[in-house]
Amino acid sequence: MIRDNFSKILREAMSEDSWLISEDQYDAKKNLQFESLFALSNGYMGIRGVQEEGNHPSLPYVYINGIFDKSETFMRELVTLPNWSELKFYVEKQLLSVERCEILEYRRALDLKTATLYKHVLLRDESGRESLIESVRFLSRENVHRMGMKVYFTPLNYDGILEIESSINGSILNFCDAPRFKVKHSVVTENSAKEDNIYLEVETRDDLLHIGTGASLHAYENGEEVLRNRRCSAFGEVALEFADCKVKEGKTVEILKYVSVFTEKDCERAAIRPSVFKELESFRDRGFTEEHRAHKKVYDTMWKRANVRIKGDFELDRAVRFNIFHLMSTASEYDDRVNVGAKLLSGEEYGGHAFWDTELFMLPFFSFVFPEKAKRLECYRYRLLDAARKNARKNGYQGAQYPWESADDGTEQCPDWTIEPDGSCYRCYVAKYEHHVTAAVMYGAYKYAETTGDTDFLYKEAAEIFVETARFWASRVLYNETLKLYEIREVTGPDEWHEPVNNNVYTNYLVKWCLRFVSSLITEMKDSREAEYRSLCEKLHFMEEEAETWKEISDKIYIPKKEGTKIFEQFEGYFDLYEVLIEKYDKNDWPIRPEILKTMSVTETQLIKQADVVMLMHLLGQEFDEETIRENYNYYEKRTLHGSSLSPSIYAIMGLKIGDSSKAYRYLRRAALLDLWNIQGNTREGIHAANTGGVWQTVVFGFAGLSLDENGELHLQPHMPKEWEELQFSIMHRGEATEITIKGDNSYTIRKREANEV
Amino acid sequence: MIRDNFSKILREAMSEDSWLISEDQYDAKKNLQFESLFALSNGYMGIRGVQEEGNHPSLPYVYINGIFDKSETFMRELVTLPNWSELKFYVEKQLLSVERCEILEYRRALDLKTATLYKHVLLRDESGRESLIESVRFLSRENVHRMGMKVYFTPLNYDGILEIESSINGSILNFCDAPRFKVKHSVVTENSAKEDNIYLEVETRDDLLHIGTGASLHAYENGEEVLRNRRCSAFGEVALEFADCKVKEGKTVEILKYVSVFTEKDCERAAIRPSVFKELESFRDRGFTEEHRAHKKVYDTMWKRANVRIKGDFELDRAVRFNIFHLMSTASEYDDRVNVGAKLLSGEEYGGHAFWDTELFMLPFFSFVFPEKAKRLECYRYRLLDAARKNARKNGYQGAQYPWESADDGTEQCPDWTIEPDGSCYRCYVAKYEHHVTAAVMYGAYKYAETTGDTDFLYKEAAEIFVETARFWASRVLYNETLKLYEIREVTGPDEWHEPVNNNVYTNYLVKWCLRFVSSLITEMKDSREAEYRSLCEKLHFMEEEAETWKEISDKIYIPKKEGTKIFEQFEGYFDLYEVLIEKYDKNDWPIRPEILKTMSVTETQLIKQADVVMLMHLLGQEFDEETIRENYNYYEKRTLHGSSLSPSIYAIMGLKIGDSSKAYRYLRRAALLDLWNIQGNTREGIHAANTGGVWQTVVFGFAGLSLDENGELHLQPHMPKEWEELQFSIMHRGEATEITIKGDNSYTIRKREANEV
Repeated sequence: MIRDNFSKILREAMSEDSWLISEDQYDAKKNLQFESLFALSNGYMGIRGVQEEGNHPSLPYVYINGIFDKSETFMRELVTLPNWSELKFYVEKQLLSVERCEILEYRRALDLKTATLYKHVLLRDESGRESLIESVRFLSRENVHRMGMKVYFTPLNYDGILEIESSINGSILNFCDAPRFKVKHSVVTENSAKEDNIYLEVETRDDLLHIGTGASLHAYENGEEVLRNRRCSAFGEVALEFADCKVKEGKTVEILKYVSVFTEKDCERAAIRPSVFKELESFRDRGFTEEHRAHKKVYDTMWKRANVRIKGDFELDRAVRFNIFHLMSTASEYDDRVNVGAKLLSGEEYGGHAFWDTELFMLPFFSFVFPEKAKRLECYRYRLLDAARKNARKNGYQGAQYPWESADDGTEQCPDWTIEPDGSCYRCYVAKYEHHVTAAVMYGAYKYAETTGDTDFLYKEAAEIFVETARFWASRVLYNETLKLYEIREVTGPDEWHEPVNNNVYTNYLVKWCLRFVSSLITEMKDSREAEYRSLCEKLHFMEEEAETWKEISDKIYIPKKEGTKIFEQFEGYFDLYEVLIEKYDKNDWPIRPEILKTMSVTETQLIKQADVVMLMHLLGQEFDEETIRENYNYYEKRTLHGSSLSPSIYAIMGLKIGDSSKAYRYLRRAALLDLWNIQGNTREGIHAANTGGVWQTVVFGFAGLSLDENGELHLQPHMPKEWEELQFSIMHRGEATEITIKGDNSYTIRKREANEV
Repeated sequence: MIRDNFSKILREAMSEDSWLISEDQYDAKKNLQFESLFALSNGYMGIRGVQEEGNHPSLPYVYINGIFDKSETFMRELVTLPNWSELKFYVEKQLLSVERCEILEYRRALDLKTATLYKHVLLRDESGRESLIESVRFLSRENVHRMGMKVYFTPLNYDGILEIESSINGSILNFCDAPRFKVKHSVVTENSAKEDNIYLEVETRDDLLHIGTGASLHAYENGEEVLRNRRCSAFGEVALEFADCKVKEGKTVEILKYVSVFTEKDCERAAIRPSVFKELESFRDRGFTEEHRAHKKVYDTMWKRANVRIKGDFELDRAVRFNIFHLMSTASEYDDRVNVGAKLLSGEEYGGHAFWDTELFMLPFFSFVFPEKAKRLECYRYRLLDAARKNARKNGYQGAQYPWESADDGTEQCPDWTIEPDGSCYRCYVAKYEHHVTAAVMYGAYKYAETTGDTDFLYKEAAEIFVETARFWASRVLYNETLKLYEIREVTGPDEWHEPVNNNVYTNYLVKWCLRFVSSLITEMKDSREAEYRSLCEKLHFMEEEAETWKEISDKIYIPKKEGTKIFEQFEGYFDLYEVLIEKYDKNDWPIRPEILKTMSVTETQLIKQADVVMLMHLLGQEFDEETIRENYNYYEKRTLHGSSLSPSIYAIMGLKIGDSSKAYRYLRRAALLDLWNIQGNTREGIHAANTGGVWQTVVFGFAGLSLDENGELHLQPHMPKEWEELQFSIMHRGEATEITIKGDNSYTIRKREANEV
């Protein structure tokens, strides 16, 4: 039992083990991994699971979604903000930390059910004093500007004076552990200390956007405030509150740190400071416990919608929940200026940018479970349609081309140059050639509308996206007079190990579908949605001939295929590459790189990074017969190294579709445990966001076989693995919370929930 | 051999073992002690012996003598300045430091002869890479604004890319390891990074005094500059220069960090920055090695004067040299705005303040060895005479009262309040009652003039000090009508464990002597120094009657004594206190606190902190017959716990004077090894400055029995301990370098050195 270590009061507050992710012993080598795993987000802010007292190594990052800065780097990246989690305890100048003391007991646990991080450490310092330190941390989901920590401090074998330091540390850097890449995206503009609180305001360097953080410290014993000698100091970039209190053997002192953050995106600059202090006051007035209770209530509601229960498979059950937790926690339900970054708000890799990952991996989850969050993601793209237009123009195309990497302003944030570990710059061609994101955005808007039934969005905002992206593709294709076909040359598909190529099937086929869909939607609108049609034509200067052109391109786009088979050729010339098949798997069931790659570049082989043709079939299953899917799956599965976390879940789903359930189960495990077990070795950089969505899709679209038919009717075709006794999850279907329960024998029930259940 | 670890190039540069203090293995618990031991100072600046790559614990302090600030603390204290010693090496993001790597070889050595800190570490990082890092650090004594480090970096078993971070860190705090006392005395006003250098300017908070630090990084392999990808960044309070270079197995790269510092005390504010860069340029042009050579030459000259050689007693020989090294390194030969703090420039305890320690413990060394430095110390007191006048006025006295603790402006810097570890403030009465410093300043000025023959100073500046301090004492004493004697009531003597007392013998007798001396000097001046006398009378509105009063007070001041004996009563009522004698000594030959102190306050006992009556006899030996000295020594020696480092050396000297040579040798060892062995456990706070002077006095006044008679003739009365074969040292006598050699049998030679020897 994970909770066993914790003292009674925390044990009672914590959820059951199937909701707890725990770190059972302190191992500095795993610090960064657990910082990612234990990251908390309330949709507004994210903080990695750093230790309050500081340790090494650590990437002590706090992010607010949507706060980006470029400065001297290659791209606008998520700005790490002042770290408000610092809370240090000293007795006679000795820092009570896992690094400086002997650790007698240690456990941290992330409670998925309540989005709360619990900690239990029993430390023995150099003087033999034993201190029990237990803490609770949460970022309120009810009031997103409130963050707090509560520490139960108990001296076990001594009386003494506890010295407490609470700080807001503005001396933060992005890439702080990478000497070559360290960068400071903010400048401290105010560091002020009042009698009983500290406040630090920073300004981003490019946009001069202000972010204010305030905190105040309190401590109680038996309900009495016990802090003495409080002193708030402004130490350069650090705002520090010091206080002490007497502690007695066996008596617990409760120490509270209330935090509040506002930015210039939340209010006027002049209002930041007052907002922070007003919020701090309200937070204190309400009290930590009451706020925590309200926060837990919000999570309770969220989980009623989002929970997936897998009976009979404890480890996977919890792992799936873990992935859902991070995904649902990060997305915002009210802010359409933000998306969900490739590492959520749990790490700095990819700069917090949104990729096609959003539409193809995460959006289905949100559309089915949190349509209001899905809507925000769609609005984000629509809001940046104009930037996509400019992007197309810049690259010599028409319509709207969405950037491969999108931050806050919709400009292309995928750098043209990157730096090698040896400091040399090299040209990065991803943004130049990898254009399928624009199809993904279009496809995502369509799927969102289809899933949620948001026709209002479909015929207005989405229709604009459709027309403009169709225009992009029409300007992107080239007509080949010899073949009498349209081609897309010099392009990169999902498999980035071959770049650029000509006529990537994934891209070409998606474009084919997009153009066909858009022209038929136009026709439909003209017929039955006259007002919206007229508005669209007016706004976008749309002319009917355009739709005819799109239809023609769609009909005549080149889709390379192996002659006499149903196997698509990933791109022109792929079949001529050196054939290598994957034969060995490691202990995590991950493919082992074939030996040949030591002497041959992967680009010369048929080995691919991730689902490409198979991804296409996942997205547009209705376009292909089962035999085609099977043949392509079998062919490409043996050639896919899963160099991206976006790959296994897709293979799992598609495997199930063609009856390969044993592999699917292995793929799901790999995907669900990817970060928990640090399978790719890079969990330190943050949680793999697309993968979290892929895990949900694998369970719901794969094992449950859920789909909506063209009338929006719910269909299930379960493929329950032998390990599972029962699978239960919920979706929003036609505005109603719908609970699906599948038994081990694939029999299932679909139940509309009562209003009071949701 | 200490040098054995070092590679050939360093080994050849280093001095013999009798000049080397070494740290043979890394033990974090000893970090702070070695930071103090390995502190370097060039008279202008001091830096603790911190590790370039940072480690824990550490007090990474850089000081410039004379830069003080109070802010919210109780006193003006030495301001810790931006740390320019940071120089970190990474390979593939792994910090090569003693904390993060396996230590295969480790040694640091302070070369006393050349004031150079050498380091040799062989580290194995997590990836098994072995790196040899050897470094050289010095603060140029020829050009005090130049500080530098040179590192020889050799990868032993790999090729790779070495990433280098050189910084100037302004995020420094005083008392940085004491949560309750942390304070920031400076604010960063400029952090600028150019292409190949970094610059940080700070401002002290009270006086808005600016201090600029600049640095630049270079690296060479076989004479070729090898740095690439140089990037200078201003990261908040940290100025950081990054660069990398390729390193090859077995090939050594030399990395250089040139540093320069100027302050607003050196030049106009606007000139600080240009001065730093001009100096950096000249430093680079001259080269590290050439500057180091010039620096070593200055030290060579200093040691020709200051060295003490004890043959046959290696450990003590080196330990004495160690003490002299720190003392002579810290004092300035040109700046009379600064004194020598109680911890030199090697720690923050006592805020860098000057005490009576200067006049009674350190000044004799300087007067005899570096009279030009002694003169600066005297000028410091003279410059602050006016502040001493104000101080007397403030306390209701006349004349000039020197502050117990003196920083830069001569106001009393001994706080009236101090903070207990539990945060409660308590009233500190030292400044209120401990007045003997004013006698010490007067005595010091007299002794300086006597030793150096600087009559010019004696009859001008010193005479002013004499008159004004005499006036102070005349206003301080009270006439007791019953006794028909003058008293000094409510006073604290050197033994601070009894405070306040009435008629402390030490104070009363010194005052007796002072007033007598001043009145006779006045008479002498009137007779034979007419011009100076007239000037004095005019300047100080001096009237002859004053001198008569002083004479009368001197004759009639109360000196308590045990009836029928020669034993002085330390203060009125001392003999009535509970008698406790010291009987046990610890392994360091330090008295063990008697058990009785567990149940009785030390104030109730006859136990004393330090030499008090015996100190008096040390200063004014000529006033007492040998029997008196012997009786008092024997009486008080058994009652002295040496709670101050100012005590053992005095007992050693006085013991020798009365023939107790065995104890004297033990006392000298205790004093000489006080910091090297961390005998008092507080070497972490800095080197005990007074003790360093006491060590020299013990050797020269004690074991060599050196004295000057009233005609200034040199006398020796050696008491060579059996352990010593030969003792050799030099003094300046009548302007001539004079070498004294004493053999084991107490026979000696006195030799005037030739001009070319000095």
